[in-house]
Amino acid sequence: MDLPFTRIKGGVGAATGFLTSATSCGIKNPDAKRLDLALVYSEHPCSSAGTFTTNRVKAAPVRVSQAHLRKGGLRAIVANSGNANACTGVQGIHDANAMCDGVARALGIRRSEVGVCSTGVIGLPMPMMRVEPMIAPLVAGLGPKNGADFAAAIITSDTRPKETAISFDLGGHRVRIGGCVKGAGMISPSMATMLCFITTDANIPSATLRKAVLECVEDSFNRITIDGDMSTNDTVLVLANGASGMPPIRRNGSRCREFRHALRQVMLELAKSVVRDGERVTKFVTVRVRGARTYLDAKKVAEAVCKSALVKSSWNGGDPNWGRILHAVGYSRARIREELVDIHIGGKAACLGGLQAATPMEELRAVVAKPEFDIEIHLNQGSAEYTMYSSDLSPEYIDFNRSEYAYWKQARKDGLV
Amino acid sequence: MDLPFTRIKGGVGAATGFLTSATSCGIKNPDAKRLDLALVYSEHPCSSAGTFTTNRVKAAPVRVSQAHLRKGGLRAIVANSGNANACTGVQGIHDANAMCDGVARALGIRRSEVGVCSTGVIGLPMPMMRVEPMIAPLVAGLGPKNGADFAAAIITSDTRPKETAISFDLGGHRVRIGGCVKGAGMISPSMATMLCFITTDANIPSATLRKAVLECVEDSFNRITIDGDMSTNDTVLVLANGASGMPPIRRNGSRCREFRHALRQVMLELAKSVVRDGERVTKFVTVRVRGARTYLDAKKVAEAVCKSALVKSSWNGGDPNWGRILHAVGYSRARIREELVDIHIGGKAACLGGLQAATPMEELRAVVAKPEFDIEIHLNQGSAEYTMYSSDLSPEYIDFNRSEYAYWKQARKDGLV
Repeated sequence: MDLPFTRIKGGVGAATGFLTSATSCGIKNPDAKRLDLALVYSEHPCSSAGTFTTNRVKAAPVRVSQAHLRKGGLRAIVANSGNANACTGVQGIHDANAMCDGVARALGIRRSEVGVCSTGVIGLPMPMMRVEPMIAPLVAGLGPKNGADFAAAIITSDTRPKETAISFDLGGHRVRIGGCVKGAGMISPSMATMLCFITTDANIPSATLRKAVLECVEDSFNRITIDGDMSTNDTVLVLANGASGMPPIRRNGSRCREFRHALRQVMLELAKSVVRDGERVTKFVTVRVRGARTYLDAKKVAEAVCKSALVKSSWNGGDPNWGRILHAVGYSRARIREELVDIHIGGKAACLGGLQAATPMEELRAVVAKPEFDIEIHLNQGSAEYTMYSSDLSPEYIDFNRSEYAYWKQARKDGLV
Repeated sequence: MDLPFTRIKGGVGAATGFLTSATSCGIKNPDAKRLDLALVYSEHPCSSAGTFTTNRVKAAPVRVSQAHLRKGGLRAIVANSGNANACTGVQGIHDANAMCDGVARALGIRRSEVGVCSTGVIGLPMPMMRVEPMIAPLVAGLGPKNGADFAAAIITSDTRPKETAISFDLGGHRVRIGGCVKGAGMISPSMATMLCFITTDANIPSATLRKAVLECVEDSFNRITIDGDMSTNDTVLVLANGASGMPPIRRNGSRCREFRHALRQVMLELAKSVVRDGERVTKFVTVRVRGARTYLDAKKVAEAVCKSALVKSSWNGGDPNWGRILHAVGYSRARIREELVDIHIGGKAACLGGLQAATPMEELRAVVAKPEFDIEIHLNQGSAEYTMYSSDLSPEYIDFNRSEYAYWKQARKDGLV
């Protein structure tokens, strides 16, 4: 399906009737004025849906947002960066609730209409003495601002805010979908990855929206990996307020398919932007597995290759090392036969039938020297396929993640630990 | 069980009746005289057992050694470093057979009595024009040399040869077990890891030996991980020639238990030495998981923690980051409850009931600053436990593994590709 989308300005505030606000309350760094508290609010009631980390260690805001979603449509989301409010026990739940409470009171809505998300360091209490005084100014700052302020306030180790928005025609009505995403480390599939917020003025009931979100997350965020580490806070939230004036989207109708296609487009673009902005990443690699016996076999192969430290190291070095790719294919637990496997790098044969192909090494090296390239692994055993988006692993990634001691020192200074 | 072992000199040649030899044939580097071809031979017929990689992409020597083991006891093992003879198709099988053939002919034994192992770069043909002429001098050089030459010839990215040997009393007879191991990268559990060769003058039938080897490998080599990458060549081979003069060890008898205990001791020491000499490793970390509902749950938790890039980065940085450990516990797919998890680092509480413990951060940092420390993760849900041996992940590891282009250039010069 190839629908005519128009790219429009902004992200989570691009759809009609969504207002955003962001402020600095000093969670990231008490001394620097970096945005770290954000709010998106719909002028109209919303249907909503979300997916969350499958990590058994779930951050407090994940638990609170899940509970609120079960009660009905969210209409506002408050999010902070700098502290994940994870591994914080009962106090963490109390703090996440307090954030929702503050926002709900200032907006005159129910607490269960507010979603809450946090991202940052794990295991330190939320510095609520800095957050709570800023809730009122945050709400007062709400305006039709496209969402760039929101996108900037939720990033942590990201090097840039990541947002996108499109508009398209749905049964004669102009509909907008916009969203933003944060995430650069602790990125791995098999969950709803990192924090992602999407808003739309489409008119779509929660149950139909939920199904669409699950499908689109599976095709986008569950297909990326940077370091193979699954976060405690991963959340994707989608709010739909119907402000486009269209009639409700019916489940399984053609407009539902069209909406899903558009939503997938937005999610996939945001998911890819996460990999491109991964911690100290220098390569964006699309790994396509074809010819597998089953979808699950194809997925196992893609995940093994995309998570292998040795494969990722070779990409970092610009080395078209098909032997390491094949060795990861071999330990993926998928049903493969070594002598049937073909590997193409940037469309050029690197390995045919499990053996080195005739392509000159220089040609393959020229492909892997680029910042973005494709790898196709054909198992020649069936017709199932799976695509993943991955990155290299750099010495600088390890260096960047060696210590979070500075956060502990700040928390001690704050009297939190 | 705590038997009185005596540490003795040497490794794979330490047991009575085993001769070793090593030579340089220029596989590692045609210009430098580094040992890269090794042989161990028993003056008496042997019983033997082995475990091999579970990677579906198996190197040619793995397939050939498996076939020879099925035919009966091995009596000699020829091993080379520098080229893994993996992903080399029919030619690879031919070359591995030729190595066994050459050795068998020179020794006057059957080809199926020779095991063959290779380690090094994947996907390049074996430079047989350099290997074959050196077989005769290799066999001629056999002597009672304890095995240090053998241990030195099989290493690749290892920084040092790794061997150990013990002697102990078994039913009134002095028995020796010695072995050596190579491996520093592509090390991950759930297989028989890397190349390991063990010889003993115990008298133990192949079937009993096989059972003991499987058990001891599960308790040693399957419990280490460096980079989470499973090799195509992993092999553990054990040869027993009975030259101690003892009567045969009976299955399930007390001497069988004693022998197994000694074998486990040797394997565990060799396995740990692999982690300590892991590629650009700076920390040796023992991760003990206790209080799991089942053995499998404990194992999943240990593996998730030991393989997490973020946890390993924090160890590299000397950061006692219990939050990252708990997040890996959470995504391990084991049945855990966050609020029950205790984490001790070097015996000091870092996390109790899923929350930060009161131990001063400086004390925990002092532990993680050391080159070796223990981490205990208590799930408080049952009585199953599992221990793994892991390392940090350093920027230098990635840097070291960025490119194997030099090997390709050499292979081109040799006319092999």
